[in-house]
Amino acid sequence: DKRASYNLDTMLEPNFKVAESVLKDLVSSELATSYFIEKKVREFCQLYRSFSDDQKGALLVTLCRNFGLEHKKVMSAAENLLQEKEDNIMALLRLEERLKDLLSPKYNWIFAQIGKIDGGVKFLVDMRADLLCSISREDGGIDLLPSMRSMNNALRDLLVLWFSVGFLNLEIITWKSPCEMLEKISEYEAVHPIRNWTDLKRRVGAYRRCFVFTHNAMPSEPIVILHVALTDNIPSSMREIVQTPKMMSVDSVMSSTGFKPEEDVRSSNSAIFYSITSTQKGLQGIELGTYLIKRVVHEIQQEMPNVKVFSTLSPIPGFKMWLISQIKEAEKGCCRVFTEEEQVNLVEHFGPPDRFYCSFRYMLGNGSWIQDDSLVQILEIPLMRMCAQYLFLEKRRGLALDSVANFHLRNGAVMWRINWKADLSPRGLGNSCGIMVNYRYFLEDCDENSSKYLRKRTIATSEQVEHLANESVQVKTSSKL
Amino acid sequence: DKRASYNLDTMLEPNFKVAESVLKDLVSSELATSYFIEKKVREFCQLYRSFSDDQKGALLVTLCRNFGLEHKKVMSAAENLLQEKEDNIMALLRLEERLKDLLSPKYNWIFAQIGKIDGGVKFLVDMRADLLCSISREDGGIDLLPSMRSMNNALRDLLVLWFSVGFLNLEIITWKSPCEMLEKISEYEAVHPIRNWTDLKRRVGAYRRCFVFTHNAMPSEPIVILHVALTDNIPSSMREIVQTPKMMSVDSVMSSTGFKPEEDVRSSNSAIFYSITSTQKGLQGIELGTYLIKRVVHEIQQEMPNVKVFSTLSPIPGFKMWLISQIKEAEKGCCRVFTEEEQVNLVEHFGPPDRFYCSFRYMLGNGSWIQDDSLVQILEIPLMRMCAQYLFLEKRRGLALDSVANFHLRNGAVMWRINWKADLSPRGLGNSCGIMVNYRYFLEDCDENSSKYLRKRTIATSEQVEHLANESVQVKTSSKL
Amino acid sequence: DKRASYNLDTMLEPNFKVAESVLKDLVSSELATSYFIEKKVREFCQLYRSFSDDQKGALLVTLCRNFGLEHKKVMSAAENLLQEKEDNIMALLRLEERLKDLLSPKYNWIFAQIGKIDGGVKFLVDMRADLLCSISREDGGIDLLPSMRSMNNALRDLLVLWFSVGFLNLEIITWKSPCEMLEKISEYEAVHPIRNWTDLKRRVGAYRRCFVFTHNAMPSEPIVILHVALTDNIPSSMREIVQTPKMMSVDSVMSSTGFKPEEDVRSSNSAIFYSITSTQKGLQGIELGTYLIKRVVHEIQQEMPNVKVFSTLSPIPGFKMWLISQIKEAEKGCCRVFTEEEQVNLVEHFGPPDRFYCSFRYMLGNGSWIQDDSLVQILEIPLMRMCAQYLFLEKRRGLALDSVANFHLRNGAVMWRINWKADLSPRGLGNSCGIMVNYRYFLEDCDENSSKYLRKRTIATSEQVEHLANESVQVKTSSKL
Amino acid sequence: DKRASYNLDTMLEPNFKVAESVLKDLVSSELATSYFIEKKVREFCQLYRSFSDDQKGALLVTLCRNFGLEHKKVMSAAENLLQEKEDNIMALLRLEERLKDLLSPKYNWIFAQIGKIDGGVKFLVDMRADLLCSISREDGGIDLLPSMRSMNNALRDLLVLWFSVGFLNLEIITWKSPCEMLEKISEYEAVHPIRNWTDLKRRVGAYRRCFVFTHNAMPSEPIVILHVALTDNIPSSMREIVQTPKMMSVDSVMSSTGFKPEEDVRSSNSAIFYSITSTQKGLQGIELGTYLIKRVVHEIQQEMPNVKVFSTLSPIPGFKMWLISQIKEAEKGCCRVFTEEEQVNLVEHFGPPDRFYCSFRYMLGNGSWIQDDSLVQILEIPLMRMCAQYLFLEKRRGLALDSVANFHLRNGAVMWRINWKADLSPRGLGNSCGIMVNYRYFLEDCDENSSKYLRKRTIATSEQVEHLANESVQVKTSSKL
Repeated sequence: DKRASYNLDTMLEPNFKVAESVLKDLVSSELATSYFIEKKVREFCQLYRSFSDDQKGALLVTLCRNFGLEHKKVMSAAENLLQEKEDNIMALLRLEERLKDLLSPKYNWIFAQIGKIDGGVKFLVDMRADLLCSISREDGGIDLLPSMRSMNNALRDLLVLWFSVGFLNLEIITWKSPCEMLEKISEYEAVHPIRNWTDLKRRVGAYRRCFVFTHNAMPSEPIVILHVALTDNIPSSMREIVQTPKMMSVDSVMSSTGFKPEEDVRSSNSAIFYSITSTQKGLQGIELGTYLIKRVVHEIQQEMPNVKVFSTLSPIPGFKMWLISQIKEAEKGCCRVFTEEEQVNLVEHFGPPDRFYCSFRYMLGNGSWIQDDSLVQILEIPLMRMCAQYLFLEKRRGLALDSVANFHLRNGAVMWRINWKADLSPRGLGNSCGIMVNYRYFLEDCDENSSKYLRKRTIATSEQVEHLANESVQVKTSSKL
Repeated sequence: DKRASYNLDTMLEPNFKVAESVLKDLVSSELATSYFIEKKVREFCQLYRSFSDDQKGALLVTLCRNFGLEHKKVMSAAENLLQEKEDNIMALLRLEERLKDLLSPKYNWIFAQIGKIDGGVKFLVDMRADLLCSISREDGGIDLLPSMRSMNNALRDLLVLWFSVGFLNLEIITWKSPCEMLEKISEYEAVHPIRNWTDLKRRVGAYRRCFVFTHNAMPSEPIVILHVALTDNIPSSMREIVQTPKMMSVDSVMSSTGFKPEEDVRSSNSAIFYSITSTQKGLQGIELGTYLIKRVVHEIQQEMPNVKVFSTLSPIPGFKMWLISQIKEAEKGCCRVFTEEEQVNLVEHFGPPDRFYCSFRYMLGNGSWIQDDSLVQILEIPLMRMCAQYLFLEKRRGLALDSVANFHLRNGAVMWRINWKADLSPRGLGNSCGIMVNYRYFLEDCDENSSKYLRKRTIATSEQVEHLANESVQVKTSSKL
Repeated sequence: DKRASYNLDTMLEPNFKVAESVLKDLVSSELATSYFIEKKVREFCQLYRSFSDDQKGALLVTLCRNFGLEHKKVMSAAENLLQEKEDNIMALLRLEERLKDLLSPKYNWIFAQIGKIDGGVKFLVDMRADLLCSISREDGGIDLLPSMRSMNNALRDLLVLWFSVGFLNLEIITWKSPCEMLEKISEYEAVHPIRNWTDLKRRVGAYRRCFVFTHNAMPSEPIVILHVALTDNIPSSMREIVQTPKMMSVDSVMSSTGFKPEEDVRSSNSAIFYSITSTQKGLQGIELGTYLIKRVVHEIQQEMPNVKVFSTLSPIPGFKMWLISQIKEAEKGCCRVFTEEEQVNLVEHFGPPDRFYCSFRYMLGNGSWIQDDSLVQILEIPLMRMCAQYLFLEKRRGLALDSVANFHLRNGAVMWRINWKADLSPRGLGNSCGIMVNYRYFLEDCDENSSKYLRKRTIATSEQVEHLANESVQVKTSSKL
Repeated sequence: DKRASYNLDTMLEPNFKVAESVLKDLVSSELATSYFIEKKVREFCQLYRSFSDDQKGALLVTLCRNFGLEHKKVMSAAENLLQEKEDNIMALLRLEERLKDLLSPKYNWIFAQIGKIDGGVKFLVDMRADLLCSISREDGGIDLLPSMRSMNNALRDLLVLWFSVGFLNLEIITWKSPCEMLEKISEYEAVHPIRNWTDLKRRVGAYRRCFVFTHNAMPSEPIVILHVALTDNIPSSMREIVQTPKMMSVDSVMSSTGFKPEEDVRSSNSAIFYSITSTQKGLQGIELGTYLIKRVVHEIQQEMPNVKVFSTLSPIPGFKMWLISQIKEAEKGCCRVFTEEEQVNLVEHFGPPDRFYCSFRYMLGNGSWIQDDSLVQILEIPLMRMCAQYLFLEKRRGLALDSVANFHLRNGAVMWRINWKADLSPRGLGNSCGIMVNYRYFLEDCDENSSKYLRKRTIATSEQVEHLANESVQVKTSSKL
């Protein structure tokens, strides 16, 4: 099997052989007792858990090859169907049923059996994460890719059924929540990494809320995590979020007995979603984040009727990379990025045209420009302009190119405000030159906004963003002259 | 639509029309936002909940007709597939995918959407109960029956996925459990009806255990209920179960504070399952009872290592009806039910042959024989014999005719002992002439027993049962002389 | 011991002797280990629990006699103190300490030791109930009464410390609460007895709230129970409370899954306390009811800001008995109860003066007057008038004679409205001729009202009550003519 | 008030004056409503919480002076009592009651009122901690000390009543417990400080148990904390406790879903108490640690019947300090610490007599001897011997001088084994030259051991300890030669 990307020796190892034979036993037995099936499923799961990545990849390939669609049988059943008389409804139904069974590969049945045992759902979620890796590595070779993708879709469809709203629990995480949960929240936080336990304590302290979805079949595992700040305006930078909130020391708020000063939530009119994280790679493509935001909005409206403004403070993960590609284009002369005047000012810092683009890219790359106040000032207008262009005008299949933008626009949010010097952490500089954006949720408009975005590709936005984006286009166009 | 069994006017009522149009909107919209789908699904569910039985039946017919398989499209897709070259794997997969989609009716998608909302799973369970009624009533006429059955299967397959072990919670019900739960347990109990709250209190009191499965999507609804008695032998009658347990008054055990005498579980070596009830008609065909027994056995082994014997004390719901049919056969002279000697003794009570069978059937019917001690004595041997024959030898498709026997034999239990005068309640007399049976679970043999039963149709049994059954056959055979 | 009211033989029974010797061991041992003390305390408690009422009484007498104050030692310590120099502060403190120890009887120490063990607090509460009985029976004879009362006070003072707010938990009881709790609530309800489980279900259903205090040392025992109805006015009869609330059927509200209609609490502006019960006789004199009302008011204000009116609908337990005593006075000619005109009208029903009072009392006694509409009409004004007099003017030590009135006036409530035909149950007729009264809580005035009532004996009341009471006085006075 | 140790200006600050006047209001009002009392108590508590340490001290002095015993009144009441006739029992009781009231200072009543409000018990615990400081600082001068001590005793007696077993909850702390709780456990741990969260995680992980007492009036505050290790022998050093337990990685044990490997508690036969901490200074003198150990033993016996051995691994906090004092004595020639032979060996390291003791003490002081293997070997015998003498023979008021020894001996434990090189942490070296001791709990003997220890001052011990102690005495005695 020279096409396989994994180490073929893995398939020769004894426990790999055992796993293959367990699968075979499991599938072959007709009239198997539930005891037998459960036993074999447990054996399989335990073996798989003990496998190396290579072995897992190899086993997924085996699963796809040996328990996938049997085209010949499908063909033959299709022929049988076509030969039946159209008015014999019972016979047609029977033949269609048979065809449908054949079109549902044996691995579907295996997945369903795994899902039945305790811990089985979590196993399938983890196995799908492995499968996504395996597909990206092209385990099994390029010829098997379409079948592997089919298997991935089949598994996703099953997981969709199990991760519907009725099985998800909204939990509010506080400093009284289990350590196990808080440790995971700390570890999973990707948007604004949690540095230490004091930081974590603040995230669940006064004027902060941390919501998670947990799933009944995966207790104490946060599936999606949403961090919210209660403020009295829409913040334009992470600084406003991170700093300890007014009037309250962390400790006093935490003290649970006696004469405790509470946060005064009546003073807050805004709920800011400043970090949302999906933790399970195996649930890729199953949009739980959207549901979580909806539920949280509902929850906050119930708990705090004063809160009228719902907005995010969001990263722009793809901006800098896209900007650099634009600069390369500009270097080639294909378009313009700066106005004449800007270019003149920038030349002072980056040198004449032959070195200009190169040193500019270099400085963007290492983020050192943020130390130079005059440079920061010069760059504000062109970078904000380019960012608006990126967010508002750059598309993929008609939808916003930026993944975070696409997520919130799908949900029906408005692209509200682009903020300069909003996140000066290495991550913020590295991804988006320190720029962040607020997506604002006007609850009564979300359905319509979402619908327009999905059907007509129209992005709801504020004047600021639209204006900046238009300017950017003008500069770009002028550049063709 | 003259074939329909429901009142056709129901389909003309305004809210029925609304429900039809909601379904149409729901299905027709491509690229619908999740807001829109959720809204429509909620509208549909609320309408359906408000419907009369007739309207529900009519709507299920509509669902089946309008959103079922489209045979033409299936045919055409099957043709397309057959025309494709066999080595073009990507094209084949695409065409097979298309065919599979067409073979999965639109109502499948609707069911899945309903399952996503809060309370949706319970809605589908209830709707399936309606569907089973609708099928038995032949709503939609006999022609639609096969399609209705297909829809039923589709819904069952979906529910199977949602009612797997990982989503079921084992709860132990005590007098400290929510009133809501205990009220339901009292209402659902079918095997040995609970007469009042004192009776209920005893069911969850000392030397008794009540286990239920609840489901995450249907909180505070007991899905399956299992009543267990802790004893020091295998009881041969309900009397031994019902009477207040030794040494302990109900009240003293219940008192939760101060110096409470506890039951002394170390004195019990047997766990007797004396009632098991599945409460949801809509989960017909999804074997949760088996899982519950397994879990409970495990739980008891953990909590009370002294308990070594696991057995049921079970009703024989079909015995009397079968016995009467046998007597009719005997009346016709096709077989014998009693030995010569027995017949002589019975004639004293029931008169000569011309009246004998008729009065015998009559007395069985009203259960009055139990008042007559001499009759009870005479009947013990022949009725026990016939009962053994019924349980051990009467089959349907090779499996035990009696539904309770079939359930426990599938689980791998041994048909252990038939008990005379075991349940003298009207129900017990009416169903099985007061006879009950113990099915015993030898844990280490269950898998093998179950497997033999399913594959070879072999029933594991004790000598008592086998002996009685053999005698019965001898009498029957002798009767042909 | 001829003074004792209990059967003296009880003291000769072996286990009584054992209990006496356990107490002796317990008290005598200096430097006893905690193991020893705990063991002896447990022995004592178990013995006492097993005693008959007579034995309990006898033991309480023994406790009081043998472990009470030792006057001689007290005297001698008092003398020692008086002989010490006044400026020797250390010596004084030591002698005072010694005196104080001697003034704290040995039984105090025993009570404290009992309170230390698990279940000990509940034991003491129950023992105090026994002690109150014992005192009322004059166990131990009249000479011991003062000492028995001292012991009672000592026990009460200890219980006061243990039943302070910090140890009481407010629980809201619903149909989801433990059966054990709901059963007790049903049994304890004295004001408006709960007839069956449907009745109970309504008490915790829509537009109703049931609050209890539980104590950490007596889990699942409701100490005080308060029933509240949410209404849109102040009801003038139990009928308005008892009837199933508007728009909602009990079942629909109870259904916990799916599409449940909720009560709409925004439509209620009033919270009516229609039953409050203290369940523990042993906590007599420890005012937990007041705390419960305060907490509940706070809770309702938090949960339902729309609720602005807080009022009771209260029984008048002593009215009829007092009324009959007044009628006897009137019969003697000491005062008047009816106006001339009323008397004339009543004579039609009760006959001339020689029979009048006797038949009137007889009819009041059996409550049959309520069946006679004309009589009901004639009696309304005089009975309401008399009731106002009873509630507003009749005093004991300056405070309201009626115990319920005294309770709410102490709490600072206003005597708001007297209601005719408010409780026509046998109990209502028997206690108060069917009349009930609303005490209204104006939260901002409670402190002042309470203070005026306690210091100046002033009852805050409405014009209706004051007017009726004045009229009653006028009639009474006129009668002296 | 020149005697006061606190800054007198604190008493002139406005909020101090307010607090004084609040107290005066509170006490002076007869017939005060409960509203008024509660309001004043809350005001007082809030003011006190806001005070500086100086102000708190000053207020406690005020409390003692202004609301303490009024000797004159006591005297006069004592005289009244003595003048009463001895046979007028009612009058005597009344006068004794009056005397007792006067002997219970007004601050007792204030404390009781504070205890009634929410958070009041915790307030009193904290205030007692302040009071203990205040007493040790001699706030109020030496003359007031006896009165301050009386106030401390009064407060302690009240707290004893509130911290009895019935109000304490045993909680088992795991990684699933609230972060708030685990953070506190980490902070409070004094015996073997917890270095980081991984360390903490291990403390509550496999083969470890962490038990705490919480109190109902101080939720989420661990009052006493006991760390237990499950082992298969009695460990002789902290190393055996600290190292990650056999076969199990921390993470695998923690993973809560799926196929989790559990610890196998059947393999453990010993429960080792390796750290016990009382967290509330204000509960000094209230022995909750003893109760916790008893409860935990009971709990472990229930959960793990295999565990038969209960032992501590305990520090010896006072050993090194005592040892140094002994060495000083030896230096003076009053006694001997080493045998001739030992002395000879040690001289090599510490030089001749004139420098010997000084350098020995210096090395003990900085713990550097532990680096020198030969020295460690030479010192083992004499230090172990001295330690046995310290533990077994050194007494205060007849009881063991070492506080930890005294605690466990009171509980009835046996002084089981002294362990060399048992705790080489800076703390272990600093307190006890790295030596630790096992106190073993033979459950059936505890009562008797405890009793013998308390009554006859007899210490139950093993041969090892007794032998070592005897040797030490011999050396010491020989030294007098």
